[in-house]
Amino acid sequence: MPPGRLISFTDGVIAILITILVLELRPPSGDHFGDILDEKGKLLAYILSFVFVAIYWVNHHHLFQVVHRIDGRVLWANILLLFCLSLTPVATAWLGDSGVKTGPAAAYALVLLACAVAYSLLTLALLTLHESESQLANAIGDDRKGRVSLAAYVVAFVLAFVWPWVSVALFIAVAIVWFVPDSRVTRTLEDA
Amino acid sequence: MPPGRLISFTDGVIAILITILVLELRPPSGDHFGDILDEKGKLLAYILSFVFVAIYWVNHHHLFQVVHRIDGRVLWANILLLFCLSLTPVATAWLGDSGVKTGPAAAYALVLLACAVAYSLLTLALLTLHESESQLANAIGDDRKGRVSLAAYVVAFVLAFVWPWVSVALFIAVAIVWFVPDSRVTRTLEDA
Amino acid sequence: MPPGRLISFTDGVIAILITILVLELRPPSGDHFGDILDEKGKLLAYILSFVFVAIYWVNHHHLFQVVHRIDGRVLWANILLLFCLSLTPVATAWLGDSGVKTGPAAAYALVLLACAVAYSLLTLALLTLHESESQLANAIGDDRKGRVSLAAYVVAFVLAFVWPWVSVALFIAVAIVWFVPDSRVTRTLEDA
Amino acid sequence: MPPGRLISFTDGVIAILITILVLELRPPSGDHFGDILDEKGKLLAYILSFVFVAIYWVNHHHLFQVVHRIDGRVLWANILLLFCLSLTPVATAWLGDSGVKTGPAAAYALVLLACAVAYSLLTLALLTLHESESQLANAIGDDRKGRVSLAAYVVAFVLAFVWPWVSVALFIAVAIVWFVPDSRVTRTLEDA
Repeated sequence: MPPGRLISFTDGVIAILITILVLELRPPSGDHFGDILDEKGKLLAYILSFVFVAIYWVNHHHLFQVVHRIDGRVLWANILLLFCLSLTPVATAWLGDSGVKTGPAAAYALVLLACAVAYSLLTLALLTLHESESQLANAIGDDRKGRVSLAAYVVAFVLAFVWPWVSVALFIAVAIVWFVPDSRVTRTLEDA
Repeated sequence: MPPGRLISFTDGVIAILITILVLELRPPSGDHFGDILDEKGKLLAYILSFVFVAIYWVNHHHLFQVVHRIDGRVLWANILLLFCLSLTPVATAWLGDSGVKTGPAAAYALVLLACAVAYSLLTLALLTLHESESQLANAIGDDRKGRVSLAAYVVAFVLAFVWPWVSVALFIAVAIVWFVPDSRVTRTLEDA
Repeated sequence: MPPGRLISFTDGVIAILITILVLELRPPSGDHFGDILDEKGKLLAYILSFVFVAIYWVNHHHLFQVVHRIDGRVLWANILLLFCLSLTPVATAWLGDSGVKTGPAAAYALVLLACAVAYSLLTLALLTLHESESQLANAIGDDRKGRVSLAAYVVAFVLAFVWPWVSVALFIAVAIVWFVPDSRVTRTLEDA
Repeated sequence: MPPGRLISFTDGVIAILITILVLELRPPSGDHFGDILDEKGKLLAYILSFVFVAIYWVNHHHLFQVVHRIDGRVLWANILLLFCLSLTPVATAWLGDSGVKTGPAAAYALVLLACAVAYSLLTLALLTLHESESQLANAIGDDRKGRVSLAAYVVAFVLAFVWPWVSVALFIAVAIVWFVPDSRVTRTLEDA
């Protein structure tokens, strides 16, 4: 099957998730400019989650530049990724409401871990379908960045029970690493 | 008429429905990791409904691989399906709020029954438009899985007044049966 | 300019509006099946509005089958239509909350009137851009159905201050008239 | 990379933002037609924000008529624009709730300023990628309108601390200036 409809459905779901995040932001109750600071925690949680979801969209965008056909397994791996991403708003809301405490930090780490695992499964499902010498296989390579992120999320989950702020620092560090889109795909595309 | 715009509108509506479902999930009031368990019922109701809506999307995706033209009747059958699917979030919210009781279980069975009937009507409208020897007619065949699901939802509706948990077990059983996308369409596509 | 992006943006906005309508439906507070009847008013208001928005989508779909290029005026006429349609959820919520009273019935009539006017302006903007002998001009013809609806909405607005139920009956009557998509466009397309 | 998926993702996010704005409008508590006036402030704030977001969509639409390829920098500049636009609903809600006071007027000016800066960055990223003699470079020209708007938003931000109504008047003035889509792009397109 051609990937067109999977791509547009994914764009739709991610576009909605990224805007549902903003529903958690409420205007402050006062009417002074400084009252914005009352919403500081929620605003920072929003920015962090917006960046995470945007990173997934950018990487999905890059990945599917070199995908030419999909099957039922790819469809379901993609739906699993969308399911995991759909838990971001509620994890963000908890972090924004309760602040950096054990519960929300651990839950946020779990959601990010689930997204990363789902993305890896999607990559594997795509590799199974394409030949090992394909543009896709070259582009993905050994996915070191993916494995490092998985490890970081596991560490962030454990540390949330001791120092939740360290978990949040890890989330930010991983976001920075992923911010640069997968240079291998870009390079392979340019070589092509 | 070509089916392009019907497909993208359907993708849009289903993408939104699947993410509206998640709006029912609220962060727990505490800040311990174990507080997630307070939201257990809602989380399970969310997963069940997400899987159901995703199954409809996957089957719609497979079905329209072999559809080349549509008419007004197909448009309205598709809109009826979207209407029935749009009732999923409120039925899910009732199941998540009140737990497995007669009211929400019966309502959930009714919504699933309505979706299944609408999907059958859509299939019929498409068959009327395509010749009986077409790829579509071969792909759909006699739709035994569809008829079994309809029967299961009727049984689940009745049993909700006696043992609501059995209804929920039936919902899960039907979801598992449909999880595998319509192998006949896939096979027909591969043969083509 | 080609109309592709206007169409996909319109599909996106209408898909969201039609699902925002469902956010007004809340599960009943009890857990008996009969408790659904507590939500009867909201459910009927939802069905009415869903059908209205769906009719606009179907007619927009038919109309743009014969549109090949657009300009800035068409873009803004279309945005005006989307704005008017976007007021449907709040008018529906008022009708669902307060029941068939003067205020909500008159507001609902005004919103429908605004949508109908905007749709007429969109048609005019398209006609200005296409030649008078074009497929579009033939397809639209003299738009009697549009003028009758406009008159019906004006009457419904006035009657809302005396017998609001008559206004609702008029809404339903107009919906039935429009339910059949514009047969002239369909016929012109089939002749082509 | 071709710009197709960036465009459809942008359309999705803007379609959702423009409809999330309407979620702030709630039906009045009474059931008289005159009770609509209770919601006057929110309705005007809604119209203002709807027009602003629509203007961005129309200009993005015009801009990408002459864009043939994008890179990672363009993707992220576009995501930054979507992020800034996503703050519109909460700024609108504050303006609608608290009325024209210093806090909401200054916040609204800041959000508009951020959107304008992000749009300029997007334009720059596109210009870097296209040759200086390209259709795009001709179409954008020296972007006087963009620079005037930036200045107006800075002034509106400062004045919000003294006369918030003047800030709102400036917002409306800028909206009117931008209402006419970028005539240079239109002209360049027609010449082509």
